[in-house]
Amino acid sequence: MTRALMIGFGSVGQALVNMILDRSGKLAGRGFSFQAIGVFTRTRGNRLDPKGLDLKALLYDISAHGKFMGETTDMAALEACRTLDYDVLIELSPLTIADHGEPAVSHIKTALSRGLDVVTANKGPIAFAYDELRDLARKSGGRLLFESTVMDGAPVFNLVSRCMKGNAVTGFSGILNSTTNYILTRMEEGDSLAAATQEAIDAGIAEADPSNDVDGWDAAVKTAVLARALMGAGIDPFDVMRQGIGNITDEAIQNASARGKRVKLVCRGWKENDAVKTSVAPEELDKTHLFAGLSLFDAGLCIETELMAPNCIIQKDPTPRDTAFGILEDLLSLDERPKEAGCAGNHPCA
Amino acid sequence: MTRALMIGFGSVGQALVNMILDRSGKLAGRGFSFQAIGVFTRTRGNRLDPKGLDLKALLYDISAHGKFMGETTDMAALEACRTLDYDVLIELSPLTIADHGEPAVSHIKTALSRGLDVVTANKGPIAFAYDELRDLARKSGGRLLFESTVMDGAPVFNLVSRCMKGNAVTGFSGILNSTTNYILTRMEEGDSLAAATQEAIDAGIAEADPSNDVDGWDAAVKTAVLARALMGAGIDPFDVMRQGIGNITDEAIQNASARGKRVKLVCRGWKENDAVKTSVAPEELDKTHLFAGLSLFDAGLCIETELMAPNCIIQKDPTPRDTAFGILEDLLSLDERPKEAGCAGNHPCA
Repeated sequence: MTRALMIGFGSVGQALVNMILDRSGKLAGRGFSFQAIGVFTRTRGNRLDPKGLDLKALLYDISAHGKFMGETTDMAALEACRTLDYDVLIELSPLTIADHGEPAVSHIKTALSRGLDVVTANKGPIAFAYDELRDLARKSGGRLLFESTVMDGAPVFNLVSRCMKGNAVTGFSGILNSTTNYILTRMEEGDSLAAATQEAIDAGIAEADPSNDVDGWDAAVKTAVLARALMGAGIDPFDVMRQGIGNITDEAIQNASARGKRVKLVCRGWKENDAVKTSVAPEELDKTHLFAGLSLFDAGLCIETELMAPNCIIQKDPTPRDTAFGILEDLLSLDERPKEAGCAGNHPCA
Repeated sequence: MTRALMIGFGSVGQALVNMILDRSGKLAGRGFSFQAIGVFTRTRGNRLDPKGLDLKALLYDISAHGKFMGETTDMAALEACRTLDYDVLIELSPLTIADHGEPAVSHIKTALSRGLDVVTANKGPIAFAYDELRDLARKSGGRLLFESTVMDGAPVFNLVSRCMKGNAVTGFSGILNSTTNYILTRMEEGDSLAAATQEAIDAGIAEADPSNDVDGWDAAVKTAVLARALMGAGIDPFDVMRQGIGNITDEAIQNASARGKRVKLVCRGWKENDAVKTSVAPEELDKTHLFAGLSLFDAGLCIETELMAPNCIIQKDPTPRDTAFGILEDLLSLDERPKEAGCAGNHPCA
């Protein structure tokens, strides 16, 4: 029985719970059962039940009322992390940049320092505090998995740690922010930057203030996560050389298109001497380039290693279900492996 | 200490031994050490030493003399599998189709039935006998890993078994045969089929008799491997609907190109009712299609699952080193995991 404390219950948290309910038979067949003993949110209330909350009721309340009904608690999320009886913290709170990943960093530290496991889809803590969290996990025996922080549930971190043992990542490049990719695709079709951005906001793809996406911050956070977790870089998102798409003119897009090029916001990490360098910037790519084929919500990541030709992961049109699956996969991995083995995590066993 | 019996010592076997020698320090740091107690080949002789062969001398002999020098043995490879003292069989003998994967199937059966582990880059045994080998492994406690059988060492089987737990593969599509991809790319550049094929033979890409590639057999074998190992299909390569590129005219390629299309030999697997269907056939793809961006030696595979948007693996211009890495990764996985855990293999733990 996996007893979870969930922080955050937005589209991804709801998709996760839906997926677990839908597949309860198949999951039971693998020996996996799931209980949420607490769900804490910023704006939808908190629920708590040491015997396990009624998951269907949680989903119903959100869909019918937009918040949890019935008995609630005014316990703070951090206090919940510190005191409740659970096996795994599922951290799904929103990304913060100015606050350097807080309060999620503290939530995760608190759980790990108790020797408890953590699965997070929030990239902030990994981008701002990966080394500290990893070391804490190693010391306390807690485990930290974060597959869904980049490219939703597509295998990235688990791919490297579980399928590329004995190899070392030397660089990466990727199209990792769907809002800018959506905007750039629409601009090629003739929209202005302003119109395409508004369209993204209206469709719920971008936030009302789209600057985190348009200015390249979301991409820079993901770049920092990749550089830290895959390449051991000692950087955070503020260290990423960052250029957004806010200054790109309609003419520049159309000109590029006429020359057989597509403009994409590309994330990069590479080694220069012994240091890891990172950047996020718009680039003109040939239409034959692998990334030029990624439109709208598609994402892609090419991983360069010491021992292999580049391997690229391409994800076609993902939804919150993909992110939810990444979390479920991490939960299954923790459940399946004895805690002492430790190396189910995204960090090497040593 | 991993004590290996190697069958086959062509470009992949040599690349593997080179990689192990080059990285012996790093591998020792992971607790991995390697000994080849026997190397058996069809045309280069056999070497045997229970204390471990001199790996550098093996490489030197092949490069200087094209065969092993010094004391040899006339023991048959199958006898070696049956009687020698080793931990893992590394099966790298060439693919056979008319012989339904033999003699490699028998080599692997013999090792597994002794409870010994097997790593193979030979796709024949998986395409023709996967179920039997998997069941034998489960019964005997031997383990069977075969990451390098499709797309060299790019994560495919390990990706699904290690990073997509709790999910089910519902279909796939791929560009998996480099010889035909090379020929089709050259034809787009103006070569005739005959000239492009001869060029592939001269460059050592295709065999002197290129029919296994041109007629789609190699692709059909890989399709069968994917359908069996990822989708549980009860088929072999003869069951794959197969059409090669031998009848494609230069005009057809140029016509397609003028219409903005590229012709690719596409492998497919999908579900129809409860049955798994498979095909290999040339298809006209839009130039914006992900696979249209794959030229010459590039390969790609899209995996469709119950719970995620399609995830695609793209491999840019691989070499025998990639195949060797896949084998090394499999060896490290076996070494790292206690044998009783069993599920280090490509098959689910159950």
